[in-house]
This record gives sequence, C-alpha cells and structure tokens, in this order.
Amino acid sequence: MKAIIVKPPNAGVQITDVNEKEVDNYGKVKIRTLYNGICGTDREIVNGKLTLSTLPKGKNFLVLGHEAIGVVEEPCCGFSQGELVMPVNRRGCGVCRNCLVGRPDFCETGGFGEAGIHNMDGFMREEWYDDPKYLVRIPKALEDIGILAQPLADIEKSIEEIFEVQKRIPVWTCEDGTLNCRKALIVGTGPIGILFTLLFRTYGLEVWMANRREPTEVEQTVLEETHTNYFNSANGYEKLKDSAGKFDVIIDATGADAGLLTNVLPLLARNGILGLFGFSVSGSASMDFKALQEIVHANKVLIGLVNGQKPHFQQAVIHLASWKTLYPKTAKNLITRTISIENEREVLKVLKEKEHGEIKIRIIW
Amino acid sequence: MKAIIVKPPNAGVQITDVNEKEVDNYGKVKIRTLYNGICGTDREIVNGKLTLSTLPKGKNFLVLGHEAIGVVEEPCCGFSQGELVMPVNRRGCGVCRNCLVGRPDFCETGGFGEAGIHNMDGFMREEWYDDPKYLVRIPKALEDIGILAQPLADIEKSIEEIFEVQKRIPVWTCEDGTLNCRKALIVGTGPIGILFTLLFRTYGLEVWMANRREPTEVEQTVLEETHTNYFNSANGYEKLKDSAGKFDVIIDATGADAGLLTNVLPLLARNGILGLFGFSVSGSASMDFKALQEIVHANKVLIGLVNGQKPHFQQAVIHLASWKTLYPKTAKNLITRTISIENEREVLKVLKEKEHGEIKIRIIW
Amino acid sequence: MKAIIVKPPNAGVQITDVNEKEVDNYGKVKIRTLYNGICGTDREIVNGKLTLSTLPKGKNFLVLGHEAIGVVEEPCCGFSQGELVMPVNRRGCGVCRNCLVGRPDFCETGGFGEAGIHNMDGFMREEWYDDPKYLVRIPKALEDIGILAQPLADIEKSIEEIFEVQKRIPVWTCEDGTLNCRKALIVGTGPIGILFTLLFRTYGLEVWMANRREPTEVEQTVLEETHTNYFNSANGYEKLKDSAGKFDVIIDATGADAGLLTNVLPLLARNGILGLFGFSVSGSASMDFKALQEIVHANKVLIGLVNGQKPHFQQAVIHLASWKTLYPKTAKNLITRTISIENEREVLKVLKEKEHGEIKIRIIW
Amino acid sequence: MKAIIVKPPNAGVQITDVNEKEVDNYGKVKIRTLYNGICGTDREIVNGKLTLSTLPKGKNFLVLGHEAIGVVEEPCCGFSQGELVMPVNRRGCGVCRNCLVGRPDFCETGGFGEAGIHNMDGFMREEWYDDPKYLVRIPKALEDIGILAQPLADIEKSIEEIFEVQKRIPVWTCEDGTLNCRKALIVGTGPIGILFTLLFRTYGLEVWMANRREPTEVEQTVLEETHTNYFNSANGYEKLKDSAGKFDVIIDATGADAGLLTNVLPLLARNGILGLFGFSVSGSASMDFKALQEIVHANKVLIGLVNGQKPHFQQAVIHLASWKTLYPKTAKNLITRTISIENEREVLKVLKEKEHGEIKIRIIW
Repeated sequence: MKAIIVKPPNAGVQITDVNEKEVDNYGKVKIRTLYNGICGTDREIVNGKLTLSTLPKGKNFLVLGHEAIGVVEEPCCGFSQGELVMPVNRRGCGVCRNCLVGRPDFCETGGFGEAGIHNMDGFMREEWYDDPKYLVRIPKALEDIGILAQPLADIEKSIEEIFEVQKRIPVWTCEDGTLNCRKALIVGTGPIGILFTLLFRTYGLEVWMANRREPTEVEQTVLEETHTNYFNSANGYEKLKDSAGKFDVIIDATGADAGLLTNVLPLLARNGILGLFGFSVSGSASMDFKALQEIVHANKVLIGLVNGQKPHFQQAVIHLASWKTLYPKTAKNLITRTISIENEREVLKVLKEKEHGEIKIRIIW
Repeated sequence: MKAIIVKPPNAGVQITDVNEKEVDNYGKVKIRTLYNGICGTDREIVNGKLTLSTLPKGKNFLVLGHEAIGVVEEPCCGFSQGELVMPVNRRGCGVCRNCLVGRPDFCETGGFGEAGIHNMDGFMREEWYDDPKYLVRIPKALEDIGILAQPLADIEKSIEEIFEVQKRIPVWTCEDGTLNCRKALIVGTGPIGILFTLLFRTYGLEVWMANRREPTEVEQTVLEETHTNYFNSANGYEKLKDSAGKFDVIIDATGADAGLLTNVLPLLARNGILGLFGFSVSGSASMDFKALQEIVHANKVLIGLVNGQKPHFQQAVIHLASWKTLYPKTAKNLITRTISIENEREVLKVLKEKEHGEIKIRIIW
Repeated sequence: MKAIIVKPPNAGVQITDVNEKEVDNYGKVKIRTLYNGICGTDREIVNGKLTLSTLPKGKNFLVLGHEAIGVVEEPCCGFSQGELVMPVNRRGCGVCRNCLVGRPDFCETGGFGEAGIHNMDGFMREEWYDDPKYLVRIPKALEDIGILAQPLADIEKSIEEIFEVQKRIPVWTCEDGTLNCRKALIVGTGPIGILFTLLFRTYGLEVWMANRREPTEVEQTVLEETHTNYFNSANGYEKLKDSAGKFDVIIDATGADAGLLTNVLPLLARNGILGLFGFSVSGSASMDFKALQEIVHANKVLIGLVNGQKPHFQQAVIHLASWKTLYPKTAKNLITRTISIENEREVLKVLKEKEHGEIKIRIIW
Repeated sequence: MKAIIVKPPNAGVQITDVNEKEVDNYGKVKIRTLYNGICGTDREIVNGKLTLSTLPKGKNFLVLGHEAIGVVEEPCCGFSQGELVMPVNRRGCGVCRNCLVGRPDFCETGGFGEAGIHNMDGFMREEWYDDPKYLVRIPKALEDIGILAQPLADIEKSIEEIFEVQKRIPVWTCEDGTLNCRKALIVGTGPIGILFTLLFRTYGLEVWMANRREPTEVEQTVLEETHTNYFNSANGYEKLKDSAGKFDVIIDATGADAGLLTNVLPLLARNGILGLFGFSVSGSASMDFKALQEIVHANKVLIGLVNGQKPHFQQAVIHLASWKTLYPKTAKNLITRTISIENEREVLKVLKEKEHGEIKIRIIW
C-alpha cells in the first residue's frame, strides 16, 4: 500500500510502499482515502522541527497525515458503502475522565495519541481501518471543502471554550441579546486566521484581521464577503486602538514570535479574553507589573486553545455547509490547490514548504 | 398604504388601505415589505379564537403579521439600501432585567408586545419603520426560504433551553463527546415538527417523528434526506417503546389535545426532558402518583417552550443556510406556496384555513 | 455482630445477631457505628410498603439503615483512627458515564445500589468496612447534628439542580445580584420541608412553609429564627396567592397525594420551577389544556428531585456547621430524640411508626 | 461628626470633625458605625501610593474606609432598629448591563465608585445613610469576626469565577464527584492568602500555602486546624514540584513582584488556572515561547480576580458562620487587634503601617 512516511525526530519524507500489517489500524470500518489536507504541522514534522512528534511504539517510521476524507469500502457498523468519512485525529488516553467522555482535548494524563503526529500512524495512505467512534460523516455536498472540517474543528473548540469562559461574566451579550456589539481581533491571516474570522462572523461578532502587510486579493474577497475589517500592523498596533477601540476577544493565530502577546495585550478590553492558538516558535512575552495590574483590575483572561474533538468536527460540517450558502466566494477560495498523489514530485514539494498564496492544499488519491 | 387588518377579539380579516399615521412604527429604518409568512397563530386571530390577541392601545384595528422579510429603502443606522431584513416579533416590557438584556422571551412582567398579535401592529402592510435593534439581516442567498427564520427562531430558543436544562446532568454527552446517542421524539409533523426534526438532526440526535397516520410524500422526503425515523401513532405509543426504546427528549409539537402528555410521558427515558411547544386547545393531562414517582426517581423534567429572540433569529439564518447545502430537497419543499398580495381572494382564503399539504405559505408584496 | 434486619418485600424488622461474613462490606476502612438516623423510607421498608426495596443478591435478609455516622477503628487509606465518617448511601452502576464520574444520582442504567434499601446491606449494625471513595468526614464539632448530613445532601443536590435549571433564564438574579427577591414555597413541614427551608434561606430566598394546620411550637421557632413565613393551607391555596403573590420556586415535600400538584401549580410565577421531592403515595395530578398553555406561555418547569452524592454530603456538612452559628435554636431542635440500641423495644417501635413531634430520631450504638 | 479623612493623591490621614452635609450619603437607612476594618489599600491611600484613589467630585477630602459594620438606628425600608449591616463597597456605573444586574465587579465602563477609595466617601465616620440595595445583614452571632465578610467577599467572587471558568473542562470533578483530588497553591500568607486557603479547603480542595519563610505560630494553627500544607519558597519552587506535583489552581495573593508569575507558572498542571489577586507593585513577568507553547498544549488559563459583590458578601457570611464551628481556633485568630476610635494615636499608627503578626485590625466606634 502506498503511504507518505516520515521518521521523526529526523527530517525527511517519502512516498513509498508499506506493508499493510506494519501500519496502525483502529477498528473494523474499511476506508479508502480520497483526500488529505496538508498543514503547517505536517511541514514541521517533515522538516524535523516538531519535537513532540514521535514514532508509534516499536516502529521505525510514522505514516504522516491528520487531515483526511475517505470513503467507506464495505458496509459496517452503521456505515454504508460509499459514505464519506473523516477521522478524528487526537485519540484518548483511555484512563482520565475527560478521555472517557470523548474529550481527549482536555486529557489530564497527556497519554493521548495524535494520528500522523504523535504515537499513531496517520492517514496519508491508500486505506485504513477505523472505529465508528472516531469517524465523522462528511456529506457528499461538502466533498469539495470538507477537508477543512479538521482544522475548523480546532477553531470550533476554541471559540466554544472562549464562550464558556465568558459565562463568568453575568451579562456578556449585547442589549439585543446577541454578540453583535462584541469585537474580535484575529492576528494572523493564514488558514487558521481565516477560519477564526469566518466562525466569529458566523456567531455575530464584529471582526478585525491583522497582519504586517496589506491584504492579498483572496483575503480582500473574504473581508468583503464577510464584512470583516482589516488592519496592517507593520507599524505597530497603536493606530488600531485609535480607530477601532479595544477588543473583547483577541486571538493570536500567528504561531510566530511570543513577543506579539506583549504588543496586543494593551488592546484587550475590560472583561476581555486573549486566546493563544498554535505555537510560538521564538521570543518571549513580557508583562510588567502595570500590565498585570490591568489584567486584575479589568477581569482579563489569557487562555491556551488547542484541539477539537468529534462534536467540534460535526459543528464544523454544519458551518462549512452554511458558508457555501452565505460566503460562496470565500468557500471556493479556501482550497487553493489539489494535487494528485501520482504527482509525487509536487506532493513532496508542498509537504516541505508553503506555497505562495496557499490557504489549504489537498492531495487527491 | 395597503394592509391586512383584524379586529380581535372579533373574527374577520380585511385587506384595506390604512392611513400611515394610524399604524405603529418602531424606529427610523424604512422598510418595504417583500414577504409575509402565514402561521397557525394568524388563523386563530382571524377566526377570533386567540383570546390573548389584543388591539394596540387606543386603536380599533390591528395590522396582522409577525413573519416578514422586507428591504431597506434608505440607508440608515448601519443598514444599506437594498439589504433584506426580518423584524423580531416579540418586544420587551422595558422594565424587567431579561427585557433589558434583549431577552423578552423570558419577560417577567408579561408587559411585552407581539407584533401582529398583541398590543403592536404587525408587518402585513406595504412598509414600516423599525429600530435596528429589532432587525435581523437576511442574506440574499436566503431570500427563498428566509421567511422560515421566524418560526425557526422559536425552535432554536427551545432547543437551546433544553440543552441548558440538561446541563444539570454531569455527563449528558455520549462516549464520543457528541449527542449522537441521544434520541428525540417529535410528536406532530407540521412546520414546527419538521423544524424541530431538522434542528435536532443538525445537533446530531437520532430523531423519530410521530403522527396518527402514514407520512405524506413531502414528509417522506424529509425523513429520507435527514435520516429520520417515523412512527404512526394511530394505535397508540406502545409499539414505539418496543421498537425504539425510551427517548431522552420528547417534544409535543401538536398544539392539540392535552391528553397527549399522558400518553407520551411513559416513553421518557431516565434524565429525560419533555418539552411542550405550542398551545393545547382541549382536554386534560393526567399523571397518577406512580407517574409522578417515576418523574422523581428518574430525574425527569417537563418544560414549556416559547418564543425565540434576536440571537435565535441569527442562529436560524445560519442553520437555514446550512440546510440548503445539507438537505436541499427538504429546503425546497418547505415553502409550499407563494401568493401575490394582488390575489386578495386567495390571500384571504389561506388566512382563514390551512391548505392541504401546506408547510409554509408566503404572501409576496 | 448485632444488626437491624428486614426481609423485603415482607413487613417486619428484627434486632438480631448476624454473621460478619454474611453481610456486605465495601472496602478496607473499618468503621464502628456510632449513630443511625431513621427516616420515612426505613419505615416504609419495615412496613412492607416500599416495592423498590430488594434483598442483596443471593441473600435472605437486608441490613437496614442508610443514615449513619461511624468512627474509624484503625488508620487506613488516608483516614486516622478516631475520625468520624458518614457513608454515601447510593452507589454507582459501574457502567454509565454519570456513575463513572461519581454521580450515580444521575445513573442512566438504573443499576445502582442503595445501602439499606436496594441491593446493598445498610449501616444499622455494629460495624462495617468501606471504601474511602464513599466516606465523608464529619467534624467532631458536628457530632450532635451531623446525622442530618445524609437527608440534607438530598436537598443540597435538589437545590443545586434547581439553580442549574434556572440558568436557562438570562437573568434570574435580582437587581442587587442576589436571590433575595425570589420567593420559594415549601409544601410540607417534615424534616425534608424544614431542611429545604433552611437551605433556601441560606441561599437568600424568601421562603413560605405550608401545611394543613397551624405550625407546631418547634416549627414556630424555626420560622422566627430563620425569618420564614407560614401558610395554613387547610382551606386551600387561594388566599396565599392574595397575600404572597406567585412563587419562583415551589417544592412538594409532602410525599402525600399527587393531587397537590394540581392545587399548587397555579401559584407558580413566570419562569418558575416546581420541584417534586419524595414520592406521592396516592391520587392523581390533573392539568387541563389551559394549565399546559400557561406552562408554555410562561416558561415553567416541573422537575423530579432525588438523591444527593458525595459533593452534596460535603456541602451539607458546611451548611450544618453554619446553622449552628446562624440558627442555633433550630439546630438544637432538629434531633428530637436519641435512643440507645440497647433499648430494643423503643428502637423497634420508632422503626415502625413516626413519633408525635418527631423531626429526626437517632439510634446510638 | 467624627471621621477619618484623607486627601489623595497626597499622603496623610486625619481624625477630624466633618460637617454631615459635606459627606456623601447613599440612601434612607440611618446607620451608626460599630467597626471598621483596615486593609492594605487603606494604607496605600494614607501613604499616597494608590494612584487610582480619587476625591469625590467637587470635594477636597475623602472619608476613608471600605470595611464596616454598623447598626441600623431607625426602622426603615425593611430593616429593623438594631440590626447589624455591612455596606457593599463598590457601586455600579448605572449604565452598563452588568451594573444594572447588580454586578459592578464586571462593570464595562469603569464608571463605578468605590467607597473610601475612589469617587465616593467611605465608612470611617460616626454614621451614614445608605440604600437597602447595598446593605448586607450581619447576624449578631458574627459580630466578632463579621468584619471579614468584606475581604472574604472578594475571595468568594474569585473562587466562584475560577469554578465558572473551569466549567470549560468536560469533567473537572474527581472520581467521587467532589473536588477533593484537586490541588491549590496559595502564594502569600497575609489575610487574603489565609482566606483563600480557608475557602478552598471549604470547597474540598487540597491546599498548599507558600511564603519565603517558615510559618508563624498563628499560621501554624491555621495549617493544622484546616489540614493545609505549607511550603517555604525561600529557595525557589523547584522542590515543591518534587514533593507535591503540579497544581490545578495557583493563586498569587502576594501583591508583590510581577516576577513571581514567571516562577510559579511551571507549577501549573494540565487544564490548570492561575489567578492573579491584588496588584503587583514592581517587576515584570516573562514568558518565553516555550512557556506559551505549554499554555496552549495543556489548556491553561491566567485570570485577573477582583471585587466581590452583594451575593458574595452573603456567601461570606455563611462561610464565616461555618468556620466558627469547623475552624474555631482559626476564626478566633483572624482578628488580631481591636482599637478604640478614642485611641487616635494608635488608630493613626496602624493606618500608616502594618503591625507585626497582624491579620485583621478593627477600629471600634
């Protein structure tokens, strides 16, 4: 069986034949892979930079891939032949109470596995077997953009958690009972930044996206179709405060320098929440005693946001379906390229580095 | 200005010219009516049967209509010319804390108004002026089925409240973190029953619809497209328990005889919740001491469900948008007829009685 | 070992010697019984009226008793010799998610056991062995009234659940952020009614107690010390509505005729909740269609309330401790009699029938 | 009328006569002051170091004092003559939704006042008039330690908010449904640290207190009576991790150097929450990119905690009452000194600097 394999902690990636008996399978539902999505985490593994990536126990390679859509090959366990399914990528430790209730995003032991990343083979291979518990149905009508349900699930969980945390405030809703008066700032305009923007807009918040440059043409389309504001932060964030005021929610979706936190914290409004999504790769955030005083005085929260689970995948499917109606141009723009697995050279190339203008690249099997 | 007027508590309905100065307006945004939806409540008023329907203070007629889509005529207050909007129909008492936070669905004083029903003129008229606070944007792509956002808002609120109430249970989610293992029984297959079905399916529950007959062709389409079960209750509910077991949620969406409650209560599972939606018009529910014991033993809840507010209208828009993608046949079937306001004879006819096969009828202006 | 045993479903009770190997034990902590409380459920078992009472599997008798305080005999498992402990009486099915997270009060399978009642031997015996997981520490300073922590735990859970359910309302708190403007009606003035009263007062609600007679002297003390109102319902509830208005919370703590529900439902305010606690033993509640309409119109809830678990026992300990300071006369009055296990005739007598003026009777070992 | 006045931003404090017409009053209930508590904030104002302290509008002095117990002088507005009351110190902006529902702790405008600190005269004076809305009843049985209800209210709100935030986690409770398996670290052993300890113990968490020295004798009593652990952090926190593991909750109650945050963050467990209470007065907290990664990976939260409101004062009363029973030695030790207002020299002295061994000092009028 053809598969894309890596050997963390070493850099490198291969498309090769693997023995079906040598790779992990997780259940009885036989699934033939249709699409894989590629994300930054895949590239970090390929480039030997993701220290938390580990081989499955007792093996010397790891099948890459945590974003996948497959087709059920044989009727089994409540699934019909031909149904499209997406696997949930993080799977529980089997011990802690959060994992026992299907929520390894809050695993307490750290003993979870992550397909294609950590301790478990992923889905960049011709086929795999899985447990219905970890399979999410993808409607045929979403075959085109459904691969986004995986990254979007992480955003769904993040925003759900933010809303849960804000229930600490007696009244966080607006005078009309909605969230329309709340303002969110999304720093970073990659796929994660765009998905945060789309989902906060869906929940009714006013949104600003920020990056250290003018928006691209595709970003411009998103901004217009979703009535989102944009801020070029090349010269710092001072002017944003002047024009937009402070923000009820700020998301750092850059995965860049930790110092960003220091810069955007002064933009956080009373009772506000600042979410960290993705992993800073350099630098240091500094908060002097006055910044801490302000956090206390004004009931502010900083929170780490990570990993969506099956309920979030299912919400992601609903939201993607709604966006095809509400934001059709944006929906079309999100998949910037589809490459056949036969085109090995290109597949390996995009696994190593990001393309110009890329939002989401799919491999088709 | 042409308007459809009624004179509760008297039966009767007229299409007539009204003086613009004699009808209620609510703000500065000028809106020209595009569509009105007709629902059972309108017919109860027309037939003189809705005792709670009252004239606006000091007036001798009431403009009918609480389901409407209009187009903004002049840019104002954050709205652009040409935008489609839907008015929120229930408006607060201005006094209690729930109304002050935009949630007159939980008004404590009972001093709220309901456009076209109670104390406030409705929207079956050429145009009206409104306050942005009560206007919900309807995307152009939803012009076809958007009128359903009003009844769906009531369902959105109902299911939100049910989920809130079930948070009393430490773990109500399934082993995979979703609600896929939870079963809902919807009694009644009118527009309300169908919207409950669609929304519970969207949230992942397994659903049974029930009525005292075989499903119609349209209902059959809904059942197939949404993977919903059906039960013919003509011979009672005993057999349903045998085939489907007990239900975590039961909704009485019949607005029929109160005695239904007595019949379906034994189908409620441990920790279950039985929601009453709409208003029984006859009969009596009886619960003997053993039925009450069972409610206590097994943590059961009975709850009255009523009225969605602006946040629920906005959720309804998102869900309608998703259903166009996920359930396209069903979405198409929901509007069973559109009648021009010029066709006065037919408009008056459908205002008096329900059509065979009707789900939702629209008037177009 | 001396024990009080019953043989459900047969009536009868004996104080007798049992072989230590023939009775259930649950763990490693050796506990010598100090006190048992007697409650109505014990008497129903003794009188052969509690159909749900069953023998432990494979046995021909059941050790009675679900209210107990014991002393740890030997240091074990985090407990010191001499510590006072109370066992949690309901224990989980071991299968469902609620039982796995320590909350068999919401058991989904019904497979739980209840010590001294259903499938498990109770604690009216000289000593037993238990699992730390099911043991609640009772401070020495509460030795006098600590036995009330068991029944109070049920009330703690009930009020906690009521507060959880009322979170469905955007703002249920008063203009000063408290619950001081909320009114509760407690029907029934037995130990359960009194504990509900004390706990609702502790949470700041205004409380009315009701019974079909004038208050006793002890009740009068409770009313005065806790600033609680009283209503004699011998002539119906009409006059209560006139004097006190409607209630945000109503508790049926009578365990009497189901028809009470019909009578008190009209007293429930908008957004109100009516809790059923204990088990009606006769009659039938009737709600005609207008009563159901009112439930819907005004967002009302009926809820069954049952069984507190370990977190509720711990809250009960805190509240009992506070009442010794805040309501010292009431606290003293709650234990109306303590009978030595040596006085077998009296023990058997109070196990068969309620004493005049009884609130809580203890057996001392 | 005698009063203790200050003139922020200038240092200094005087006991002097003030004209009753020149000081702020807030309602109709006439209250004669019995006790005032002194806290660190008072001393910061007296020493001219609290920049946020401001004079009431149009005045040239501020009556100090935000901790007070008074006696109602004349029956009024639901209060009887002779009742003890405590005023709520922070009062709403009158504009935002949180203030409208009695929760100025989450004021969105920042337009609130704080008696004795900011924009409003305080309660270190012979008498004042107040609004029932802002008065909390203090039972006679709590006259001795009731003054602690004000600082404790802040802790009540803080822990309530922490528990609200942790509801983001599907299951945060332990296998027995309690919080007994959760561990809290309280850094700082002043009155705030002690009150945090007592309240977390009351809620069942295992607690460690930490300070850069061995515990005092009084602290030793608290530790023993409440079964709390202690850690001497003079040599850093490394050894604490070795002996106690990581903490689910960490509270910085030092009000000292911001750098503490950097030191204790590595002690925070998965899904943990770190609360900042009080105001750092120097230094800077630094979090490098790896610390931020860990916050994201492990769902961690940092939160600012401030100000309790009337519901929290009422909870504080209940908890103080319970501690008199549960922790009698600790309760007795909390008020370390009571000074008569006649003893002006000593009053002024303790307003300027903290006494050795002080927990809470009261002025008696």
